[in-house]
Amino acid sequence: MKRVSIKDVAREAGVSISTVSRVLNNSAPVSDDLKEKVENAIKKLDYMPSNIAKSLRKGKTGTIGFIIPDITNPFFANIVRGAEDYLRQRDYTLILCNSDQDEKQEVKLLETLISKHIDGLLFTGTGNFNPVLAEKIERGFNVVFLDRIIQGISASYVIVNNSKGMYELLDYLTVTGHKEFVFINGNKETFSAKIRYETFKKVMGEKKLKFTHFYTNFSYEAGYNFGKKMKKMPDAIVCGNDLIAYGVIDALEDRGFKIPEDVSVTGFDDIPFSKHYKPPLTTVRQPMYEMGMKAAELLVKIIEEKQINTEGIILEPQLVIRGSTRRG
Amino acid sequence: MKRVSIKDVAREAGVSISTVSRVLNNSAPVSDDLKEKVENAIKKLDYMPSNIAKSLRKGKTGTIGFIIPDITNPFFANIVRGAEDYLRQRDYTLILCNSDQDEKQEVKLLETLISKHIDGLLFTGTGNFNPVLAEKIERGFNVVFLDRIIQGISASYVIVNNSKGMYELLDYLTVTGHKEFVFINGNKETFSAKIRYETFKKVMGEKKLKFTHFYTNFSYEAGYNFGKKMKKMPDAIVCGNDLIAYGVIDALEDRGFKIPEDVSVTGFDDIPFSKHYKPPLTTVRQPMYEMGMKAAELLVKIIEEKQINTEGIILEPQLVIRGSTRRG
Repeated sequence: MKRVSIKDVAREAGVSISTVSRVLNNSAPVSDDLKEKVENAIKKLDYMPSNIAKSLRKGKTGTIGFIIPDITNPFFANIVRGAEDYLRQRDYTLILCNSDQDEKQEVKLLETLISKHIDGLLFTGTGNFNPVLAEKIERGFNVVFLDRIIQGISASYVIVNNSKGMYELLDYLTVTGHKEFVFINGNKETFSAKIRYETFKKVMGEKKLKFTHFYTNFSYEAGYNFGKKMKKMPDAIVCGNDLIAYGVIDALEDRGFKIPEDVSVTGFDDIPFSKHYKPPLTTVRQPMYEMGMKAAELLVKIIEEKQINTEGIILEPQLVIRGSTRRG
Repeated sequence: MKRVSIKDVAREAGVSISTVSRVLNNSAPVSDDLKEKVENAIKKLDYMPSNIAKSLRKGKTGTIGFIIPDITNPFFANIVRGAEDYLRQRDYTLILCNSDQDEKQEVKLLETLISKHIDGLLFTGTGNFNPVLAEKIERGFNVVFLDRIIQGISASYVIVNNSKGMYELLDYLTVTGHKEFVFINGNKETFSAKIRYETFKKVMGEKKLKFTHFYTNFSYEAGYNFGKKMKKMPDAIVCGNDLIAYGVIDALEDRGFKIPEDVSVTGFDDIPFSKHYKPPLTTVRQPMYEMGMKAAELLVKIIEEKQINTEGIILEPQLVIRGSTRRG
């Protein structure tokens, strides 16, 4: 489709380009007669002022990039929805990129997005130091880290108090008589996985409890495979997210174990299916929609107010007790 | 962040702009000495050639819009993943927009996307005639409809043979002795909901079976609310998608009914959770990832080959029999 330009509108209306411009921008008075001619021409040609040309002049594109591991994980789908709802209200559009937590892919996506002159980036990467990203931020590129803080990079962020969530979960489990633990964690390079493990280990030490810990990845399959080959049952299996917990529960049930009678199982996230799972999952709720919304809000503030100081927002998790854990 | 221009690079390297351009585009031989100077300047200034300026010249932005109802529905998350995976390989980025099937919102999003000069649009709207979209397509705007055909608009599309899926499902249910049916369908303005109902009604008529049919919306809550107030149980409850089926199953179980002993329940889509649901859901699988991938592939073909004739791709659904339906 050949794009209709302001020249075409002027020709069609039989007026000068500057007259069309005055009508479009309301920048100077134009007679009703000329105004009508221009408006009819705009309608007839389906002319739309180019945001691209405008953005080149203003140095703004109204476009935000969002790099996440995988949109098919409901945790990220809910975060993205929160971000997009906020951005839409503020007339920004969202470019979505899946990275599968692959660091090379993250760098490639970052360079693509920058070459498209995004106004800013929401970034949920691995959590490992990324020199390309660090350099861009150093030069003033607008970024908000979501669900991540990256050591060695000073940038604004929105995270959830993972440590508190783990602490409350373990407090509940020990109070209800669980003494021996297995922790099936997610990807070891992920910020939140590391934090949760640190808190877990600390609590186990303080309370002198027996435990084993394993990094896997944040998927149903990881949980299922783990559940298939587990030998001795602990009192509780703490999982890195809800998907892992679903997998463990299904594998153990396939093997004839009863949840929670034989072993308690917990998740992390509280994705929408967890309350409907059978048994419904005891888990730590992360405010996913709010995480996306707050991160988008913070990024827009940084872009529009040219805020230089970094800002961190820490949201509160919430322990949700359901049927997958036993009492006392 | 002030953008570094080709001028800045030329100044830094102490060469002319055309020399920088020659190095960037490999358009004419440049001495090794000058080349090194330019490359060092590019590195030092972190210069990146502007895709925006390039796209203004070429009339291409490498950006695709995708309007869907809601990314938190796993059906759409899987479709979007398929599309984004394909587009990323072909160096396109994807702007994601949620419309909640609101027609006014769809028009607004469409206009925003066009003003950003997207190269093309993947569109999963209501399925009702949209005059704004029709006009754009008339003028040569590149669109592929996904999971929708819209009457009165001639455009390329990727759909699933919904009629065949419904036919096979009902064939299985009648062969296994189900005689009385309730169909809890999704949104009545949705293309796929209409097609499935047409086929359902036709089969019921041909086989002289008793049935009732209701339009609700494609959500867990719709199914749950329906299940809460159902009075007489049929032999089978056919649901418009898997989410509705989950809701019905949970509501009926809350009321003491057993699935499938008291009533069979079926879904549509086979989202990833359906095989893990308890009972695992009998449903009609739609090739979600493939739908997204094929639609993106078709759109890129239309854009790059300037294809004028419209093309329709019809993918095959697959009946998946699991534990939520009884036999004989």
